[in-house]
Amino acid sequence: MLGFLYIYNKIIDCVSNIKKGEDFKKKNMYRTHTCGELSLQNIDQTVTLSGWVQKVRKLGGMTFVDLRDRYGLTQLVFDLNKNASLADEAQKLGREFVIQVIGNVSERSNKNKKIPTGDIEIIVDELRVLNKSEVPPFTIEDETDGGDDIRMRFRYLDLRRPEVRKGMLLRHKMSKHVRDYLDGNGFIEAETPVLIKSTPEGARDFVVPSRMNAGTFYALPQSPQVFKQLLMIGGFDRYYQIVKCFRDEDLRADRQPEFTQIDCEMSFVEQEDVIQMFEGLAKHLLKTLKEIDYDGDFPRLTYDEAMNSYGNDKPDTRFGMKINDLSETVKGLNFKVFDDAEYVGAICAESCASYSRKQLDKLIDFVKKPQIGAKGLVYSKCNADGSFKSSVDKFYSQEEQQKWANALQAKPGDLMLLMSGDKKQTLAALSELRLEMGQRLGLMDKNTFAPLWVVDFPLLEWDDENKRFQAMHHPFTAPKPEHLHLLDSDPASVKANAYDLIINGNEIGGGSVRIHNTELQKKMFTLLGFSDEEAQSQFGFLMEAFLYGAPPHAGVAFGFDRWVALFNGSKSIREVIAFPKNNSGRDMMIDAPANIATEQLNELGLSVISK
Amino acid sequence: MLGFLYIYNKIIDCVSNIKKGEDFKKKNMYRTHTCGELSLQNIDQTVTLSGWVQKVRKLGGMTFVDLRDRYGLTQLVFDLNKNASLADEAQKLGREFVIQVIGNVSERSNKNKKIPTGDIEIIVDELRVLNKSEVPPFTIEDETDGGDDIRMRFRYLDLRRPEVRKGMLLRHKMSKHVRDYLDGNGFIEAETPVLIKSTPEGARDFVVPSRMNAGTFYALPQSPQVFKQLLMIGGFDRYYQIVKCFRDEDLRADRQPEFTQIDCEMSFVEQEDVIQMFEGLAKHLLKTLKEIDYDGDFPRLTYDEAMNSYGNDKPDTRFGMKINDLSETVKGLNFKVFDDAEYVGAICAESCASYSRKQLDKLIDFVKKPQIGAKGLVYSKCNADGSFKSSVDKFYSQEEQQKWANALQAKPGDLMLLMSGDKKQTLAALSELRLEMGQRLGLMDKNTFAPLWVVDFPLLEWDDENKRFQAMHHPFTAPKPEHLHLLDSDPASVKANAYDLIINGNEIGGGSVRIHNTELQKKMFTLLGFSDEEAQSQFGFLMEAFLYGAPPHAGVAFGFDRWVALFNGSKSIREVIAFPKNNSGRDMMIDAPANIATEQLNELGLSVISK
Repeated sequence: MLGFLYIYNKIIDCVSNIKKGEDFKKKNMYRTHTCGELSLQNIDQTVTLSGWVQKVRKLGGMTFVDLRDRYGLTQLVFDLNKNASLADEAQKLGREFVIQVIGNVSERSNKNKKIPTGDIEIIVDELRVLNKSEVPPFTIEDETDGGDDIRMRFRYLDLRRPEVRKGMLLRHKMSKHVRDYLDGNGFIEAETPVLIKSTPEGARDFVVPSRMNAGTFYALPQSPQVFKQLLMIGGFDRYYQIVKCFRDEDLRADRQPEFTQIDCEMSFVEQEDVIQMFEGLAKHLLKTLKEIDYDGDFPRLTYDEAMNSYGNDKPDTRFGMKINDLSETVKGLNFKVFDDAEYVGAICAESCASYSRKQLDKLIDFVKKPQIGAKGLVYSKCNADGSFKSSVDKFYSQEEQQKWANALQAKPGDLMLLMSGDKKQTLAALSELRLEMGQRLGLMDKNTFAPLWVVDFPLLEWDDENKRFQAMHHPFTAPKPEHLHLLDSDPASVKANAYDLIINGNEIGGGSVRIHNTELQKKMFTLLGFSDEEAQSQFGFLMEAFLYGAPPHAGVAFGFDRWVALFNGSKSIREVIAFPKNNSGRDMMIDAPANIATEQLNELGLSVISK
Repeated sequence: MLGFLYIYNKIIDCVSNIKKGEDFKKKNMYRTHTCGELSLQNIDQTVTLSGWVQKVRKLGGMTFVDLRDRYGLTQLVFDLNKNASLADEAQKLGREFVIQVIGNVSERSNKNKKIPTGDIEIIVDELRVLNKSEVPPFTIEDETDGGDDIRMRFRYLDLRRPEVRKGMLLRHKMSKHVRDYLDGNGFIEAETPVLIKSTPEGARDFVVPSRMNAGTFYALPQSPQVFKQLLMIGGFDRYYQIVKCFRDEDLRADRQPEFTQIDCEMSFVEQEDVIQMFEGLAKHLLKTLKEIDYDGDFPRLTYDEAMNSYGNDKPDTRFGMKINDLSETVKGLNFKVFDDAEYVGAICAESCASYSRKQLDKLIDFVKKPQIGAKGLVYSKCNADGSFKSSVDKFYSQEEQQKWANALQAKPGDLMLLMSGDKKQTLAALSELRLEMGQRLGLMDKNTFAPLWVVDFPLLEWDDENKRFQAMHHPFTAPKPEHLHLLDSDPASVKANAYDLIINGNEIGGGSVRIHNTELQKKMFTLLGFSDEEAQSQFGFLMEAFLYGAPPHAGVAFGFDRWVALFNGSKSIREVIAFPKNNSGRDMMIDAPANIATEQLNELGLSVISK
């Protein structure tokens, strides 16, 4: 029997350009069609289907079985009156049994408009159980009764849920579109090594003991940064790679020890070239994956603007509610808290003047949480009659509060929220408060995408703990040429041609123009507290490479897991990773990491000194 | 200045579908064009180019500079009479300097037909040195004076050589075509984890100590085998991945500790479905990369046929010269060597009857090399007059030798070569001899591609050293259903639905129908000498997964490095790997593996016990 196996499924619309017909025609004894493609056009055809039993329902003498595969669901019918033994077999089928059926495509009297195959059903003539199944430990449906741990332990069953499959298909489609766009723009995909050398800078490396050179170690790359720069020196001109990277961090928030990066680099370019190229990529993905035509250029904010207006270098710009600096406005009126503060800032929450005392107290509790750590919150309600009611009416007259309203463009019915203190901390707290209010007011629709570039990052940031400068991006980022003269006199004020792509408050990617000159790179390492010897032993090969005609170059890297999760509307990147690890870095399914044999340790010249 | 930066270079024809025009138009201050695209159509245009100085030639008052980038070479002209200081600067340029020039496109009087830009040259008005270069340690040309070690140490310079670049571009293009074909056939790319669990079966694993679970280890995957099977159980239906794999082997021959695999798996299929799908892939690549339309189906040989006719399960079928079994024909005529031998086989080398004594002695030396280990070689020349002249004329009459000639279809002028001994060893030696003769006779053209499938592999092979069976492919390969009954009584005779794709004597890929049933998998582990406990602790999760509705499935994996090397005409896979390691597993450029800090070891709970 010849099989036309092509994909037709509107629910799962993430499958990319499937070839139909001849290319896909071949002998297949397991099926002639998938469970997602039969329609009224196939009426009266004899077909063979294979798949999983989703559900068995008995209705009088009729048994209905929903058969599921990656492509969809098809209803099978067994009639007790026509074939009693077959119907009997069908009733014995359990959830997740793998079966094969041969039967006739028939029009359903009771059509199901919710699924593409809902117009038809299969009147089954033959049934073969290909594999039985134990009762699965949780329901294989979008709404499942399985908790996180059990779903991760049986991830292969979790992957059968349409919701999870949809994320994996989106991931596939996204990587295909990324490759198509970059290939179309002359980028060469190149694989950089996974077994490299450990460098103490940045996060902690995973290491790999070498057996052939016992006592020494490879490291797994945190990014292919140095190698992509070497590819530019090697004349690749435009490079990309979708590549696994590794960081041995304590896994808080939404991190994985192995993650995937879209890694890119270009030669003979400046910041503007890189931004245009990758804004093009982002638009291409918005268009092909989310059917969004983004008009015009993405907004750009300098790092300073982002910090001042959003308290954050990855602002969520799906909504306004910008932070305003009221420091000048509020001082000198005997309210000690504001008078003593380095900074006083405020946001305006639209239509929240009606907040009750209880609601306001909850907001105050929110900002006092240890993660935010503010001491308090001042509010001022803009009443409908144009008057104000605040927690500091004692100190600030109606006229003074009108000044705040003017600065914040607050209207009657709005609520002004003020915070004060150390500038950096207060901005950070206001950022959290703003996001909380955005959430409460439903301003963060997950189907809205607000991209922007944040540019002009500081080159360095001061590390209070170690009393030295750290690279804000990484040590290979070039200072702005016009700031070179400040490197010695005022390093903190030096800005870099570094840029981040932000969407909905997520740092989707970032990059910079790189240093391509040995002397400047050496100077940078010195600023970062490397001794000459350390710089030489860790990055000597790169500084040597710069001696042999390194071209000007710049690049960018995107967090692929994060980007897929964002487009998929997922809360966690784990949802779009086939086999993720838990927060202790464990794979619960295969139970890794694990002990290894003593002989293995001996071969590596290692011993375990603690457990 | 707006830049139309598109690729036009017939020499490097490996760059895939580059978009032209609008998509690629953007502000770029470094160049308006690449060094590979200007032609007579651009005459009189003012252009900006950037690239590397390939060569500087002085001819009277004229200085000519060849400017190189990834896309090609363009000739720059500096005229002493027009601009003395500029020409002076040009003369100071060294090899591999990175420069930018602005100038006018002009028709060359002395055209160079060897390069696409050979009709034009640039009359330079402005010159800017973007970066200087030390004198490179070897010549950056196809014919280089750099040895292997120095080229690997300065791999970034090696990558600038057009020959190396061509291989890397082919690699990029090939991966793009693989993805396009598989995506078009409904395969989903999924990333499987890199940090997994060590299993003692097979080659040695690289391991990664866990800090969060000190004393335990991850392992790097030798292949995603188990995970792709879990994806099938998870309903992925069709999966692929181009993925790095790792093996801690002593690096003989052409191996790398990290290598790349095209890894694929399909559900609800049998061997025939997989072969057809991936024969389609191979034809697609032959067509798109080598412009070869392969007519009809690839030949198929059973493992037994391949061993008997070629002495090898990966026969080079670019030429015939098949091995013939003469055991029956030669016995009983008092030549003790043959009479006592388990097996006597022969090949026929066409037109080699004229071989001198010295040439024949060299062949005998060849088969006596320790790697081949034969005791000797019997020859028989088929003279032009129909008579025979052999080294064993004493034992074999002309009529007897005529029988050999009949079996071998030897004609007058041909040379018959016979070997004898243990069957397995003799076939292996004859295989080496056949390849040697193929080489000598020029029958192994690297632009000819002879693909075939070898099928019906034995399920098991006897491991003499450990006195137990080993899996010929891997422990997840299913026995042929019709041989299941032999598993207990005669395991050695059981064949598997396993298949290898061979091209020109290279095993390009291989795969099998998998076991999808817990009981059979357990039995297989028992046959391979696993205790129940070992099987459970290493593969318990897989056998458990089989309990929840595992579909019938089969797959294949291709050695991507090897395939690229073959299509590129490279002797070694190192030539088509951007940053390969040497035979000691060292990266000579970054100098890895290396020592790590004691604190790092402490955090991992490890100590180095030997050096």
